[in-house]
Amino acid sequence: MENIRLHPSPGEWAALTTRPGLAAEKLEKKVRAIIREVSLQGDEAVRQFSARFGGSAPGDLWVQPGEIRAAATRVDPLLKRSIRAARKNIERFHRSQAEPVRRIETVPGVVCWRKSIPIERVGLYIPGGTAPLFSTLLMLGIPARIAGCAQIVVATPPREDGRISDVILFVAGLLGIDKIYKAGGAQAIAAMACGTQTLHKVHKIFGPGNQYVTCAKKLVQAQSTAIDMLAGPSELAIYADATCVPAYVAADLLSQAEHGADSQVILVSSSEAIIRNVLKEVARQLPGLPRKRIIEKCLLNKRLVVFRDHRTAFAFLNAYAPEHLVIASQRAGVLSRLVTNAGSVFLGNHAPESAGDYASGTNHSLPTNGTAAVTGGVSLDSFVKKVTFQKITGSGIRRIGPVIEEMAEAEGLQAHRSAVRIRLQNEKRTS
Amino acid sequence: MENIRLHPSPGEWAALTTRPGLAAEKLEKKVRAIIREVSLQGDEAVRQFSARFGGSAPGDLWVQPGEIRAAATRVDPLLKRSIRAARKNIERFHRSQAEPVRRIETVPGVVCWRKSIPIERVGLYIPGGTAPLFSTLLMLGIPARIAGCAQIVVATPPREDGRISDVILFVAGLLGIDKIYKAGGAQAIAAMACGTQTLHKVHKIFGPGNQYVTCAKKLVQAQSTAIDMLAGPSELAIYADATCVPAYVAADLLSQAEHGADSQVILVSSSEAIIRNVLKEVARQLPGLPRKRIIEKCLLNKRLVVFRDHRTAFAFLNAYAPEHLVIASQRAGVLSRLVTNAGSVFLGNHAPESAGDYASGTNHSLPTNGTAAVTGGVSLDSFVKKVTFQKITGSGIRRIGPVIEEMAEAEGLQAHRSAVRIRLQNEKRTS
Repeated sequence: MENIRLHPSPGEWAALTTRPGLAAEKLEKKVRAIIREVSLQGDEAVRQFSARFGGSAPGDLWVQPGEIRAAATRVDPLLKRSIRAARKNIERFHRSQAEPVRRIETVPGVVCWRKSIPIERVGLYIPGGTAPLFSTLLMLGIPARIAGCAQIVVATPPREDGRISDVILFVAGLLGIDKIYKAGGAQAIAAMACGTQTLHKVHKIFGPGNQYVTCAKKLVQAQSTAIDMLAGPSELAIYADATCVPAYVAADLLSQAEHGADSQVILVSSSEAIIRNVLKEVARQLPGLPRKRIIEKCLLNKRLVVFRDHRTAFAFLNAYAPEHLVIASQRAGVLSRLVTNAGSVFLGNHAPESAGDYASGTNHSLPTNGTAAVTGGVSLDSFVKKVTFQKITGSGIRRIGPVIEEMAEAEGLQAHRSAVRIRLQNEKRTS
Repeated sequence: MENIRLHPSPGEWAALTTRPGLAAEKLEKKVRAIIREVSLQGDEAVRQFSARFGGSAPGDLWVQPGEIRAAATRVDPLLKRSIRAARKNIERFHRSQAEPVRRIETVPGVVCWRKSIPIERVGLYIPGGTAPLFSTLLMLGIPARIAGCAQIVVATPPREDGRISDVILFVAGLLGIDKIYKAGGAQAIAAMACGTQTLHKVHKIFGPGNQYVTCAKKLVQAQSTAIDMLAGPSELAIYADATCVPAYVAADLLSQAEHGADSQVILVSSSEAIIRNVLKEVARQLPGLPRKRIIEKCLLNKRLVVFRDHRTAFAFLNAYAPEHLVIASQRAGVLSRLVTNAGSVFLGNHAPESAGDYASGTNHSLPTNGTAAVTGGVSLDSFVKKVTFQKITGSGIRRIGPVIEEMAEAEGLQAHRSAVRIRLQNEKRTS
């Protein structure tokens, strides 16, 4: 019997919205040692750890330009066409995030502005595993290119034969990224953070990964390398009302569940009957899916919640702050105004989460573990810093000078005051 | 004899741009215990730690509304006028940072946009000490209000008499902030991060502080509370060429040095003669300053560097990535294009750093310790998260559906593919 929670009171929400704890601390000692070794020995340490952890440890850790060209010829033309179409959408949406320089004259003679300047060197981690996640390379590589980062390094574990998948290489070639380091795991993160004989250390590291990768990102962040975020298990919350299509809702839940047994799935609805219809559809669709076992395991932890009114439902969803939120309703537009905490929101019955995962244009690197309450996902902003500038004329400083003097004096900072006063005195003399 | 480095080669830059190491690790155990206690005992633990560390521990930890009103009557009218003028400029510049919602139709029927949504509950830490840093409350409170954060809590240590300075209360009143928690140090950060009986825990903590405060921010960040940044000692780099005014450059160096003995001061110039002129001015202006001792101590660690050409000079300054960069030159506009790493840049002879500290409009909460290479200072962005939305119509999913299917298939994620396929099949049936 499915456990559907009816109208839980706010006091019960905390329990319904908790995530499983991350076991990263146990790994810390091990990962710390890997980082130390790589920082001391460089590429050779990377090779040794790759071999020790059962991965491939190629003699040459770098992909050769010829490999990228050759790989492109082996990728299915239909897939290439799809990737190009997705790239165009992702590029269009991320270009729209560029902030124009706006010069604001706060008082006459005092002009302030901020300018987006690319982060010079970035590292993109692309996990290996059963299937090459080339979509993640699109999601990280496209904004890095738009931002204009001077050095973009990709680190990704090679297959058993020491090579990188053709599709990954094709995408790298498409984006004009030619620095591909054949390593995965904590040692790859360490190489990008500390630098090696052949890899100039980067300023910021992006990308998802297993618990070793995440732990390494956490540790290098505490030292000096910036990171995009600490990615926890993926999450999907769906709000489904009477106007949803239960078969679609079921399909979206299943797609989320196939990410892994630790994926989080929450279904919130205005009625128990809708949830039962969705569950029937889940049972109907599940047998046809190759990742059935993973999905079943994941669904054991799903949460099914009914709220009488949609305001309470969205208050609950905001308390959870999901990475992905699907609003399966013909009223999705209106309901979406109630969203305050979510990574990416999908409106209506025709917007599956997988659209955002691949091709609609939004980024799929999103905040998990409740961090959607404070931060958005990866965007063009993640690859730049916004630097403030100010230009002040003689008449400008005459205008705001007295204000600064008064305030510096009140804070007991006389030298701050003097820096203004000496200018005002000179201005008087020379004018 | 002053140690002026002439034309150092890039190999020597690392040594010239290192910061002193932060000794935060020694404190960690102590601060960890404080956080644990506050998370268990709440307000009473805050009171006890405040008393134990020699601070005031008032019975009522909250400022009463009447106190705010009464304080305003005691602040010097001229100071109030200056604060209002500064507020107007800061507000104007930070309002200009609001990102309008841009709906991008990436393909017909697929519309993506992002929306800035305020972080619900924020905590602003305002240090106590010899002088009340009301300017920091302006710099954090103004963007928090513009963003529309639902709960803004200020934590600041009370004076010996258990009260908060009148100017701080005046600024809080001006900004409509009425939740002021009378506590400082690590215990105040812990209270905001963990919540107490009377303080609803916040999502993000802002503000500078001593090493206890910084250590506490670092520790709560590793748990679940976001922070603005880890503030190290303040930094100023000045580029001065033949068109600078040495007396102004000296005044700016002195104003930076009065922040504390650990402040960082770097002067880069196109000629040794200019540096000598500036140093003469420093010697002339120093005796008149009340914080002479602190300044002298700070200046012991100043760095003076000459580069023949301005391109190399700016490459060096970018390698340092200063919090503040003053370009003391009549060619500041052109030279500023060479800046890639800096927190806030001041152009020309009439723009002292103290303008940005107080009143020009830019924020004075800026990245230190080299983090200007990857991040900007506090801005309106710091108080919102940018959430992506997408709306897809039936014809939209028909258009991008095949692209998604192809890519999901290639990544081995069949359920992702099915979520699209089931919609396409239904669309066909119903259309």
